[in-house]
Amino acid sequence: MNIKRWSNTSIAALFLVASSLLSVPSFAESEEKQLIDPRNDAYQQQHPDQYHSWKSTSESAVIEDALHEDPNMVIMWAGYGFAKDYNKARGHFYALDDVRQTLRTGGPQDENSGPMPMACWSCKSPDVARVIDERGEDGYFEGKWARLGDQIVNPIGCADCHNTNSEKFKNGEPELALTRPYVERAFESIGKPFDEQSRLDQQASVCAQCHVEYYFAGPTKAVKFPWDQGTKVGEMEDYYDALNFKDWTHKVSKAPMLKAQHPGFETWREGIHGKNKVACVDCHMPKVTKEDGTVYTDHKVGNPFDRFEDTCANCHTQTKEQLHSIVSSRKAQVLKMKLTAEKQIVAAHFEAQAAWEAGASEAEMAEILMDIRHAQWRWDYAIASHGIHMHAPEVALEVLGSAVDHAADARTKLIRLLATKGVTEPVTIPDISTKLKAQQALGMDMDKMNQEKKHFLETVAPKWDKAAEQREASYQ
Amino acid sequence: MNIKRWSNTSIAALFLVASSLLSVPSFAESEEKQLIDPRNDAYQQQHPDQYHSWKSTSESAVIEDALHEDPNMVIMWAGYGFAKDYNKARGHFYALDDVRQTLRTGGPQDENSGPMPMACWSCKSPDVARVIDERGEDGYFEGKWARLGDQIVNPIGCADCHNTNSEKFKNGEPELALTRPYVERAFESIGKPFDEQSRLDQQASVCAQCHVEYYFAGPTKAVKFPWDQGTKVGEMEDYYDALNFKDWTHKVSKAPMLKAQHPGFETWREGIHGKNKVACVDCHMPKVTKEDGTVYTDHKVGNPFDRFEDTCANCHTQTKEQLHSIVSSRKAQVLKMKLTAEKQIVAAHFEAQAAWEAGASEAEMAEILMDIRHAQWRWDYAIASHGIHMHAPEVALEVLGSAVDHAADARTKLIRLLATKGVTEPVTIPDISTKLKAQQALGMDMDKMNQEKKHFLETVAPKWDKAAEQREASYQ
Repeated sequence: MNIKRWSNTSIAALFLVASSLLSVPSFAESEEKQLIDPRNDAYQQQHPDQYHSWKSTSESAVIEDALHEDPNMVIMWAGYGFAKDYNKARGHFYALDDVRQTLRTGGPQDENSGPMPMACWSCKSPDVARVIDERGEDGYFEGKWARLGDQIVNPIGCADCHNTNSEKFKNGEPELALTRPYVERAFESIGKPFDEQSRLDQQASVCAQCHVEYYFAGPTKAVKFPWDQGTKVGEMEDYYDALNFKDWTHKVSKAPMLKAQHPGFETWREGIHGKNKVACVDCHMPKVTKEDGTVYTDHKVGNPFDRFEDTCANCHTQTKEQLHSIVSSRKAQVLKMKLTAEKQIVAAHFEAQAAWEAGASEAEMAEILMDIRHAQWRWDYAIASHGIHMHAPEVALEVLGSAVDHAADARTKLIRLLATKGVTEPVTIPDISTKLKAQQALGMDMDKMNQEKKHFLETVAPKWDKAAEQREASYQ
Repeated sequence: MNIKRWSNTSIAALFLVASSLLSVPSFAESEEKQLIDPRNDAYQQQHPDQYHSWKSTSESAVIEDALHEDPNMVIMWAGYGFAKDYNKARGHFYALDDVRQTLRTGGPQDENSGPMPMACWSCKSPDVARVIDERGEDGYFEGKWARLGDQIVNPIGCADCHNTNSEKFKNGEPELALTRPYVERAFESIGKPFDEQSRLDQQASVCAQCHVEYYFAGPTKAVKFPWDQGTKVGEMEDYYDALNFKDWTHKVSKAPMLKAQHPGFETWREGIHGKNKVACVDCHMPKVTKEDGTVYTDHKVGNPFDRFEDTCANCHTQTKEQLHSIVSSRKAQVLKMKLTAEKQIVAAHFEAQAAWEAGASEAEMAEILMDIRHAQWRWDYAIASHGIHMHAPEVALEVLGSAVDHAADARTKLIRLLATKGVTEPVTIPDISTKLKAQQALGMDMDKMNQEKKHFLETVAPKWDKAAEQREASYQ
């Protein structure tokens, strides 16, 4: 295990001289490696405005239960963690709270138990950057999610997107950095190495460390972006199909499913803001002028309409109400098509179940299950990322349309197959009108899961926090 | 029959005095009604720049055969005129040539023969405004299309959109006007009477005299816009359903079909340019500054990219190439979803045919045929108007997605119904890979239709032209 070696003041001073004289800030790094400090308040003095605005992401505290709003999704994700619970994202400040509290990560009692791998921390904390830096990628990824629970304790913050050890950062400059090696490789795979990117592209790329589609690959379940053939929905679908990869087997239909994460970067690229080089920060982290005339980048990542004059109004001449009305109408369009796709896909899952029950063979079902896989992948790609109705509504609508098309293909084949097995009555869909009823229809024992989670939060999580507190007490 | 009474110079002078002194230009009209002069060259001297730019719509002369490009549409319109031929619109200058030449209007040999009603002239000529003005709406609409072939001889032009008898027009001002009473009623039905519209709205409304959805209603087959419940796709669908209206019965599926015309105004309203009050003329008829510094409105209605600096560049800062690339990608998205919807709808038509052949009853088919009707109406609404990919791509994609959804509903029901009739094999779709093959699959006798059209153009049309020439020789 690596030993933490904190740079002392004299080394920092040497850096300062070296970088200002030679403009080679990496020069000193070969002499002594500085480890990453994951604590966000460690940078409060260097970047007070950024720190305080980051900290105010804690004001985005409301938990919105997406499964409660749309119980269809319980069925869509049957047999997968997202059927247990799925809340809309809160502020960055809550990233760790939320990943601990979600039923998806279960209630592990020791470092080897629980349903999820280490990869589930990857977007939640600058401790991930620190641990990868100290132990390498395998040293981070291997094992279950609970293995390093006491190491990953600071929520998304400074050292996730900045080279916090650079002299420039210490002098108040941003010094953007990719802090996960798998993200560096992903950008190389699409011909855009980070070091060769424009400042604008880099601004989008640091957000793309997390706001992307990814999957867990190989024996260590390491994060990989499926970008080798491109970042469009069909290109990633082809990538997964060629690998024969699946995230899980659907509990109802037995289809080999893909779970889209949140391909916000990929869809933003295809949308009008992306095509016009308006990057994430321009709308979500605008420049703010203080009373003394100085300017800083607001790190309270949130809804651009909340800071209309600093965001939309920089380019658009319409009123806030006018633009809000346009965005609302697009949101309604996407929601309508989302529900339309769900209606067809949910029916396909239950019809596939009926076909299995009627004696359908693997060979008869193979093509149909791929139709279901593709339909749902497209549905998920279109709606999983935040703000698609704003970033790329036409992409969402086209992709959702293709989801309906694939579902229609599955269903027409299924109904014909069912008929050959003697089933010509419509397949009954159980009552899935609420989250609870949908989970009951799947036979999910929610009481047990909630109990396990409660036990974990009361017994295991506090131990992690205590161990982390002791460890961090040794930091300068 | 009314007698033509041309105003003489003294009356015109009286008008001038009356309007300048009293500002009541309609005052003199009660004394003696001026008839509409439909001849476009009659206004050449008053509006030379407008006239010459209008005349150069003759440069848009290429005939593009849409059925050749996409033979699915032959099947979509089976049993209806559009399956015979359907060419993309040429310049306004060719409006009359094209309506005479299309196979849809057939080869009438006298005023009582031919497949289409008088209404088919309604958007083609200022003679329509003249005839309605002289004979009233019933006097125009009643009877077959060939009835007044010798009266409708001047292509779309000045007196379609301007009050050409007004003193203002004679003095070189535009004086926009709705020249069809059914259009006035349509705008009243959506709470926007023309006289109360802003100048900007009026600019869009004159184009909306033709670039809209309409149908032929009542015993005279008069043009009516189905706007009583609104101009969105679902609102017009509800309107037609409540009336139990159909344009035709589909030859393959027997579904009661609707043919969307070209709801460009309706979709523009929903799109980003419409919402931002950028009207038709801003992009398609820009203001042009001449060498002498004077400005006129270019009447060569066409593609805004052909006059980029006078159109798009007035608002957009991107280069022509950048904007063209964005528009092209949206065009490709809409085309892809169009073809997707067609694939499902064409299959539904043939599956419905198979169900009838397998002994399905009217009762069993009723709901299914409505699904087909709605699917195709939505497909047609989304793609029938020119430039939807530019005007409202998100509307096109949403509506096409809903078309796929309705087609999926039809097909799942059909396949289940077929199974109850003992048919579990996929329904074979004939070779419709070319326009000709698709027409052959429908048993259409194209040789006969082409022969009839040729005969009409060689014998009837020249007589119309000669009669019109003699009649117009009496005009001042």
